[in-house]
Parts: sequence; C-alpha cells; structure tokens
Amino acid sequence: MAGDGEYKRDQNYITTRITADGRDGYPVEPGRYRLVVARACPWANRASIVRRLLGLEDALSMGIAGPTHDERSWTFDLDPGGKDPVLGIERLQEAFFKRDPEYPRGITVPAIVDIPTGQVVTNDFAQITLDMSTEWTAHHRDGAPELYPDGLRDEIDDVAEKVFQDVNNGVYRCGFASSQEAYERAYGKLWDRLDWLEERLATRRYLVGDTITEADVRLFTTLVRFDAVYHGHFKTNRHKLTELPALWGYTRDLFQTPGFGDTTHFPQIKEHYYVVHTMINPTGIIPSGPDLSGWLTPHGREELGGRPFGDGTPPGPPPEAERVPDPA
Amino acid sequence: MAGDGEYKRDQNYITTRITADGRDGYPVEPGRYRLVVARACPWANRASIVRRLLGLEDALSMGIAGPTHDERSWTFDLDPGGKDPVLGIERLQEAFFKRDPEYPRGITVPAIVDIPTGQVVTNDFAQITLDMSTEWTAHHRDGAPELYPDGLRDEIDDVAEKVFQDVNNGVYRCGFASSQEAYERAYGKLWDRLDWLEERLATRRYLVGDTITEADVRLFTTLVRFDAVYHGHFKTNRHKLTELPALWGYTRDLFQTPGFGDTTHFPQIKEHYYVVHTMINPTGIIPSGPDLSGWLTPHGREELGGRPFGDGTPPGPPPEAERVPDPA
Repeated sequence: MAGDGEYKRDQNYITTRITADGRDGYPVEPGRYRLVVARACPWANRASIVRRLLGLEDALSMGIAGPTHDERSWTFDLDPGGKDPVLGIERLQEAFFKRDPEYPRGITVPAIVDIPTGQVVTNDFAQITLDMSTEWTAHHRDGAPELYPDGLRDEIDDVAEKVFQDVNNGVYRCGFASSQEAYERAYGKLWDRLDWLEERLATRRYLVGDTITEADVRLFTTLVRFDAVYHGHFKTNRHKLTELPALWGYTRDLFQTPGFGDTTHFPQIKEHYYVVHTMINPTGIIPSGPDLSGWLTPHGREELGGRPFGDGTPPGPPPEAERVPDPA
Repeated sequence: MAGDGEYKRDQNYITTRITADGRDGYPVEPGRYRLVVARACPWANRASIVRRLLGLEDALSMGIAGPTHDERSWTFDLDPGGKDPVLGIERLQEAFFKRDPEYPRGITVPAIVDIPTGQVVTNDFAQITLDMSTEWTAHHRDGAPELYPDGLRDEIDDVAEKVFQDVNNGVYRCGFASSQEAYERAYGKLWDRLDWLEERLATRRYLVGDTITEADVRLFTTLVRFDAVYHGHFKTNRHKLTELPALWGYTRDLFQTPGFGDTTHFPQIKEHYYVVHTMINPTGIIPSGPDLSGWLTPHGREELGGRPFGDGTPPGPPPEAERVPDPA
C-alpha cells in the first residue's frame, strides 16, 4: 500500500521466456512444461483460455491449484493426496524455491514449470499468453485462431493497457483501497473505462478487429467475475454487468464460445475471493448469489457480424479432467 | 448469536405505551413527546414515514441522530453543538438511563422521549407506529389515511409477521450469520419470501386491500435499502431489487409517494451500515454505488388501480428542517 491508501500491485515477475529458439534456455518442447493455474484467478484464467483456443492441451499439460491458499502459497489440495500428479508437489511455492531458494515475492499463478527440473520458468502472466500465440505455433491445433495478429498488435496493446490499468487491476484497486479517497479514485476510473468499453462494444462484436483476440481474453476474465465477486466484495457497484447491455451481451457471447465459459468455474471463483481476503470479508461467508442462469441466454451479438475465429474454427470440448460445472 | 451461527435479535423493548386514555401514565398530548430516529435505521424509518403520512409533525416533534454510533449509543452529532436542541442531550443513552439507570439492553431507535422528564417512554418500534395510527387520531391531519383499518388488521398482522421474520429481520439474519449454514438458511427464507411478494404484488398495487397500510410501510423500509446496502453488505445478492419487476415497481411507487421517499436518506443509510459494522466491513469504506437515478422513473403501477390514500389525501411537503437529499 502507498501512503495514500492506494493499492499497488507488485509487477515484478520471473520473466524468463519459453521460445521457439530457446534463447533463454527454455525451448518450446511438447510435454516438457506444466502450466499451473487456479480456476479462481483471473490472470491464470487468461492462460487457460488461450491454451484451449490454440489447442495446446496435449503439448502443455495443466495443473490446477485449489481456490484458496494461505499466506504462503497456492496448494494442490484438489488433487489426490494433495499433490500435483505430474510435479509431485503440494505447494506451488516448492517450484518457485527450486528456481530460487530465496524467492522473495508472491507465489502467483499462472506459472509454467519445467517438469524435468521442477523449477518455475516464468510467472509473467502477460507474456505467457502472448508466447503461446507467437512461440508455440508449431503445436497449435488445426484451425487455431490468430489471437495476436501482426497487423493489430499496436491496437491490441493499447486497448489491453487501458483495460489492465482501469479494469483488470482497477477492480483490485477498488477492493484493496485502504482509504475512502483511494477507493473513489479507482471507482471513478473503472467506471469511466467501462462506459468507454460499453460504447465501443455497442457497435462492434469484439474489441479489436472483427475476430477474437488477446484483448478480448484479457477483458473477459474480469467481466465474467464482475457480478459474482467484484460488485459486492470489491464495491465496484455502480451497476451489475447485467445492467450494461453491450458489455453483458459481449461477455455472454464470449462465455458461450468454446474456450471461455468452459474454463470459468464460478464456485471456485467465489470461494477464492470471499475466503482468502479475510481483511475485507472476515466472516469468510461466501454469498449464495448472484443468480447465474442468464449466462447461457441468447445474446444477439451475431447481428454485429464478426468472425469469432477468423479463418479458423472453434476448439473441441475440453479434456474430461478439465471440465468445469455448468453455471445453471 | 446462537451456537449454530444464527443471528437472534433481542426483541425486548420498553413497552410502555402512549395512549389516548393515558393508562400507562403517558397520555397522548401534543408537544409533550419527542420521537428520536436515525435516517439510516429501517425500524426508525417506519416511524418517520407514519408520522408524515398522518401529519403528526406538529404534535410530535422529531430528533434525528447521526448515521453512525459507537458501541454504546446513537448520538446527536448532526445537531449544532452535538446536542438535540429540545432534549439537550448528546447521546440517546442519556434518555434511556433517565428512565432506568441500569438499563441493560441496546440503545435503539426509534424511541419516544417524554420531554418534561427526559425519560424514554418506549422504544417498542412495532407498537409505536400502530399507536400513531390508533391512539393519536385526535391529532391526525385532515385527509390522513387509515394505515391500520379495523377490518384489515388480521391480514396486515399476518403479512407483516411473514415480512418481519423473512425480510425485515431476514436481511440481518443473512448479514450477521456467523456460519455458512446459518447464512444459507436465512438467504433461502429471504428469497422464498421475496418470490412470494413478487407474485403477490404483480397483480395488486399494495400488500393488503387497495390502499397504503402499515404493511406497506414495513416492507418499504427494507426494500428501499436493498440495493444500497443489503445486496452487497449483507450478501442478499440473488438479484438486485431492480431486477424484480413487481417489487421494483412497487417500491418506486411508494418512494414517489409523499412520506416515503422524502424520509429516505441514502447517504446516511450507506454510511451507517458500512461504517458501524466493522466486523463485516473492517475497512469502513463506503461504496459509491449503486446508481440511484432509477428511483424517480415512471413505475406504471397506477394501472393496477388502488387508491394510495383511500378517501384521504397525500401529505404536504416535509418541514424545512427535515428535508432529505434527492437521490439523483
């Protein structure tokens, strides 16, 4: 926290990259790495969506940490025996300490672990999804979409930066503000940006271009959590998402697209935020609401045109072991 | 709290009554008593509404405690010098202790104080409004409505009891539950009752009969606070009130009726709950939302018929000193 009560995210990550040419010592190689996520976490959700959209499931396996964690680490408490079956560890922290026994910062998801050494390669969430799009191309499925196409990168980067500051991180700046003034500043910026997005998406189906891109993935993971968590828990409550026609239609459209809704686990999302943040919800009670039945209703966004996967195709269903519950 | 985490309201009040015949030693007498309320409190809001509807402003003056209070008492911090100008006290507690120096229970509003002695006569909120209707008749304004008419009392009592258990107190049972199970029980009962009310009010303008009665006053004070406080703070979040067409129309209809909206003070309501309940909102941060601009929009409920004031008329505007801010 800064002195003015404003929440500042520690944005120092392990920035080693897994690349096609292996210049950081970690070449793209199917079966060598394990992506570790938690269903609850919006930053990890980006990676689980992009992995699905690009069909990287066979090349890059995925471990799933449970929704709650203690002060120290995410844990594999959902797995038999409380251990990730591939990495053989109970706490993600172990993979960070294998990389650096003195690792001083937060243990975050998503993280990619080098299976042979058990070391975390990177937890740089913003780079992880871009590298899946641009470095792992040899292992993309047939029909994989271009999520970060050359000609649109400047626009994607620009929109994504605005969305990061005011929305992705903006909801945390509302919820973790420790002064009324800091909260109100964050709330103002969040809603200015949501109004801007509402207007932008009233006439276009996707954020950039006429297909799904990285920019949509990044906005989606915050919007899909909005009514379930941020509205009440983080006090971002000017309106519910369901009250914003374009954004609600847009988010439902993506939710109903393979790769998005099928990576969204509402019970774990709610459990994470309401249980872990004892300083804003000391009772640990998890709300029963909101009603989620609207997520599968028609959104009418096809009328705006757009080709979700461009010249590609949607991914097939997720692997059995990675299924999430239906929202209704 | 009971052992099962369920919130139990202490329902022991000072039950002395002010009556036309003075049988408890306190006869109805204009100018003798002072009603003490807080704008924030739904139980006190009942009394401020009924006083307005019946035109008792001149006969029964009103002191207004501030929205927040400490462990011990509501205080008159809104008044010049921090003292109620009629009672001359800083804390409502003083009037309770004048009545009983050992007064062992909570200092609650509404309370009616006997001005000559400075003693609380009663804080029995459910009886206070009924006695305004039935004992203070000699001082009702011309055109005052019958809020508790003889022929409808059984039905009003029956509906009011259901509303009290599941809605008025039900929202507190959600918010103050100390176990997940107790919360979920209260949430289930609340929403079963709101569904029942939604259906009942889809085809009838008011809860009982075709005019405003005590039953409507009691339901209104909870519904008007629903989206601003209970939805997020008390986790009653299946839907917002604005998502329930009949109840939202019904509450707006009442809000726009003189006596209801003009006694509703949204900023003080939000401040009270979010600041006082440190065990569920330890940061004390008050949400900026929700957007309140919908309260003054057309509700279309006239189509259901009904005669708000029966053979009577609406009250005029509130006294200058008792004005509340416009919601928009």
